[in-house]
Amino acid sequence: MKIGVLGTGDVGRRLASELAGLGHQVMLGSRTADNPAAAEWAREHRGSHGTFAAAAAHGELVVNATGGLVSLAALATAGAANLDSKIMVDVSNPLDFSHGFPPRLVVPPEGSVAEQLQQAFPRTRIVKTLNTMHNTLMTDPARVPGPHNVFVCGDNQAAKAEVVNLLKSFGWADRQILDLGGLSAARCVEPLVLLWISLSSTLRTSDFNFAILR
Amino acid sequence: MKIGVLGTGDVGRRLASELAGLGHQVMLGSRTADNPAAAEWAREHRGSHGTFAAAAAHGELVVNATGGLVSLAALATAGAANLDSKIMVDVSNPLDFSHGFPPRLVVPPEGSVAEQLQQAFPRTRIVKTLNTMHNTLMTDPARVPGPHNVFVCGDNQAAKAEVVNLLKSFGWADRQILDLGGLSAARCVEPLVLLWISLSSTLRTSDFNFAILR
Repeated sequence: MKIGVLGTGDVGRRLASELAGLGHQVMLGSRTADNPAAAEWAREHRGSHGTFAAAAAHGELVVNATGGLVSLAALATAGAANLDSKIMVDVSNPLDFSHGFPPRLVVPPEGSVAEQLQQAFPRTRIVKTLNTMHNTLMTDPARVPGPHNVFVCGDNQAAKAEVVNLLKSFGWADRQILDLGGLSAARCVEPLVLLWISLSSTLRTSDFNFAILR
Repeated sequence: MKIGVLGTGDVGRRLASELAGLGHQVMLGSRTADNPAAAEWAREHRGSHGTFAAAAAHGELVVNATGGLVSLAALATAGAANLDSKIMVDVSNPLDFSHGFPPRLVVPPEGSVAEQLQQAFPRTRIVKTLNTMHNTLMTDPARVPGPHNVFVCGDNQAAKAEVVNLLKSFGWADRQILDLGGLSAARCVEPLVLLWISLSSTLRTSDFNFAILR
């Protein structure tokens, strides 16, 4: 599949690398066409790189791995036409680091970044997932033993099913994938990042994850 | 121990019943001195009931089981002098049901209800815990098998240790009790209630809990 990954940070490069390794044709998108990190990634992973618009145009499926505070602007740059009718996997978290550490959570008026993006790009099928863990765990769930979970939500069932298949290709088992329903559940999982940050300090590791036990 | 429980809802009555059953002298506090639910509870559980002020004055330790949106007002009614130097176990969640279901989370400017209360009552030693699960699980953790967690945070170590002992008396094992550090971590756990509500719809049960697996 042709996949565009927006965002060249740790999360974007991790997901792009995994997807390229699985045989997908991945273009890494950044604000500028000559981003050195993106160019280096493309050389090392037999992928390509370009602007947000180029990566969005390239992808049959698009991953939003930009920071949650700038996602709306990044997608505007990518262009609605380039995102039209496509599945977008939103892994972003709306964290404000401008006041130091720990960062503050910014809750958009729409309730969550995912809902904000969905309202701005109604013809894109947004699925929220993977935002509640470290990027190394996203593509290698076996780093943490036991029945820990990845949450998924979105308004389009077919899009969600496709994203679930992608998660399975990363190594997530069916019983680990917890479907929370419509995209409004994004407002329940985006705040989890604050607890994640607190726990990473307490536990002194990033190899942990949330689980729902019953 | 003499314990005052503020709030006569399901959570307050559940905690008051458990504490009375453990042999503590419990007074259930409500806005008015003649609350019928509180009177009935007192009859059934060999406890007492009264106003917020009476219950706070009675308690060597005080539990805040009022709704998070009205906790500040309830504690003001209870009176700073009646809470002076006491441990307060804050189990509240700041949920706004005025727009229907699901409720919205209200984040106070201080970051969390617990921090808001701590700033307003600096001589009270507030410990946040138990707000991330159904009230039946609070006092009966064995309802859910496995290594699920209860979070604890607070700025005073001695107060936190005493609350940890209280949790153990409810049946929580050492390894289940996760100390998140200072009270500012309350801003990380209060939003969990939104995910809890979402999950209770998805899973169609309240017998579940969060776990941190590593």
